[in-house]
Amino acid sequence: MGKYILPKGFQASGVHCGIKRFNNDLGLIYSRYPCKGVGVFTKNKIKAAPVLVTKDILNKGECTHAVIINSGNSNCCTGWYGVRDAKKMIHAVCESLKLKFNTVCVASTGIIGKRLPIDKIVSAVPKAVKRLSKKGIKNLARAIMTTDRKLKLETARFNIGRKEVIISGVCKGAGMIHPSMATMLCFIMTDAKIDKDALRMALKESVNSSFNSITIDGDMSTNDSVLLLANGQGNNKVVKKDTKEFDIFLKKLKKVTFKLAKDIIKDGEGATKFVTVYVKNALTQKDAQIVAREIANSLLVKTSIHGEDSNWGRVASSIGASMADGIKQNKIEIWLDKVCMFKNGKFTIPHKKRTSRIYKRRNVEILVNLNCGKKETRIWTCDLSKRYVEINSHYLT
Amino acid sequence: MGKYILPKGFQASGVHCGIKRFNNDLGLIYSRYPCKGVGVFTKNKIKAAPVLVTKDILNKGECTHAVIINSGNSNCCTGWYGVRDAKKMIHAVCESLKLKFNTVCVASTGIIGKRLPIDKIVSAVPKAVKRLSKKGIKNLARAIMTTDRKLKLETARFNIGRKEVIISGVCKGAGMIHPSMATMLCFIMTDAKIDKDALRMALKESVNSSFNSITIDGDMSTNDSVLLLANGQGNNKVVKKDTKEFDIFLKKLKKVTFKLAKDIIKDGEGATKFVTVYVKNALTQKDAQIVAREIANSLLVKTSIHGEDSNWGRVASSIGASMADGIKQNKIEIWLDKVCMFKNGKFTIPHKKRTSRIYKRRNVEILVNLNCGKKETRIWTCDLSKRYVEINSHYLT
Repeated sequence: MGKYILPKGFQASGVHCGIKRFNNDLGLIYSRYPCKGVGVFTKNKIKAAPVLVTKDILNKGECTHAVIINSGNSNCCTGWYGVRDAKKMIHAVCESLKLKFNTVCVASTGIIGKRLPIDKIVSAVPKAVKRLSKKGIKNLARAIMTTDRKLKLETARFNIGRKEVIISGVCKGAGMIHPSMATMLCFIMTDAKIDKDALRMALKESVNSSFNSITIDGDMSTNDSVLLLANGQGNNKVVKKDTKEFDIFLKKLKKVTFKLAKDIIKDGEGATKFVTVYVKNALTQKDAQIVAREIANSLLVKTSIHGEDSNWGRVASSIGASMADGIKQNKIEIWLDKVCMFKNGKFTIPHKKRTSRIYKRRNVEILVNLNCGKKETRIWTCDLSKRYVEINSHYLT
Repeated sequence: MGKYILPKGFQASGVHCGIKRFNNDLGLIYSRYPCKGVGVFTKNKIKAAPVLVTKDILNKGECTHAVIINSGNSNCCTGWYGVRDAKKMIHAVCESLKLKFNTVCVASTGIIGKRLPIDKIVSAVPKAVKRLSKKGIKNLARAIMTTDRKLKLETARFNIGRKEVIISGVCKGAGMIHPSMATMLCFIMTDAKIDKDALRMALKESVNSSFNSITIDGDMSTNDSVLLLANGQGNNKVVKKDTKEFDIFLKKLKKVTFKLAKDIIKDGEGATKFVTVYVKNALTQKDAQIVAREIANSLLVKTSIHGEDSNWGRVASSIGASMADGIKQNKIEIWLDKVCMFKNGKFTIPHKKRTSRIYKRRNVEILVNLNCGKKETRIWTCDLSKRYVEINSHYLT
């Protein structure tokens, strides 16, 4: 059995329906057994049609059996047609798999503001159904890619009270990644028996410290969706909130989402460095976050990392620009790759041998100690390269 | 007489003191007659030493006679030394020109976190004093440049009640330009007789609609300063608030600051396009501004303009990502270069001939009509090119 597998009772497939010229562009997830389904969605005030439709379906609280996903077109800003087309995708799945409308979710990613070639999609659905397989996780991961270069998937196998449980996730990311997600789609499946409230809480917590703690270019998408489906086919005792079992489940779910979030950063458009920004001893959690995000989104910081140029002054400037409360210049410490550059309101003069190593590795680290409170946070991001500009200058055409 | 001149009673110079290897890096402004001086400074919570010192001096309310400016080093994050060095620059000017300490301002721009080579600066001050000249405006403009490619200066000559008055300004900009300014220095001189309150108000208004309405990369600097000096050597009736004369003065001051702000954008690091973002009919002024800034700072929008790719979907996504109040997808209109791309919640299909012209010229325009209120704003920005990344990857070394 491979490293990445689907949990018990799940099947998946990925096929070519013709939105893209060559690559697969239609993915399907199916569970014979009814799933509890929960989701987290973009906070962008302009939401794509599939986001609106799926949110609505999940709110109705019925069980979920399938998710249909297309790449290459986000079905966003498509007005009345958009919602109709998203629903047509669902209807096609219902027909092929004999399901009720409210048990199927839909997601899309790709260009904004073009009608979906809905006929192509609808006629490819039977093929996607036919190809459903227990081994289909990689095909699914491939079908949802846009500018991603690598497949993003992860499986966690573990025991809850001696019974094996599996959590598997696939996602797509690349550009436009930001706290509060941004064009990323992520589908997580598990065979754990779990209470719906517990499922919802676990998803929220794991998304906050993974997908909501990454940023590539500060843009926030209209289509971000993270769905978590649990079909209860494991033999474990039902996981409930505030139990030891819940802690185990959450830990493993976090393992999956962390791995996927890191994969997204590593595969960021044009990214050559994986950057971790720590902010410590902030006045409030919010202050820690705005400082970390200001640094992580600063083009000047990102380009200096790309150039392996230990320009800590740009980090200092971003700290001040964040307008976070409690910032005092003479209390701040700035550490780049574990070398202290700034302390007590003035720069330190570390040994040349030490500074010459800064930003040289693929994994780099910025640590800011604000020394004015007790809250801390961590954000993952990447550098900004010419390749990013290249990729994003010619996306539409 | 050239196009750019100094107002009556002002002299300026620019010399080489040795912070930079070849280019001039020390500028001096001097008025024999005492000036009323007002300033606007960065809101970054980490402020460079010269900003702190100059703010303090202006607050003391004495008249101003001179401003000393260095480029190549921002004297920021330099701790206790920084303040001492900034004061040493002032003392050197006082000594050479026989002035009192509190009548001289200081400004710096360049790299953060390095000590000023203060001895070099101090020993070059007498040379800068010697070179003071009524025609020195271009020398001054050249000495304050960092990554700027072009001199940025403007002169307005006009009458207040038949008496000629002159307003002249020089500035430096390039990268790191953001609402609330960011490493930009601007020095404006006038010989108008004007009341200090009126002077302060005129500066505030003109900065808000010029330097505070531009953005290049969303970063905010530690050193931004705009100083306005009025030596009262014109023969006009004293300009006071709420008079016809004030309106004339403000109009001309705006002309100067608009020209300088536009020059900064046109000379943005790696910029190839001048972009105007209009947001109309927003619920509040603040909402209009956050929408305009979200669009202007979106890397995806900036790169699509650079690639001449009429990807209005990225504009739509930025509108939503701004989280401004009152946004309704089906009320929004998006116009690119005067072609309507999105209306009534769905995309329009303009004639190919018209869309093919979008983003092709050097001056491009994005207009967003939110149709939910009556407030509007305008922001100037530029595109994002590979050259920007190139310049900023290797600034320190």
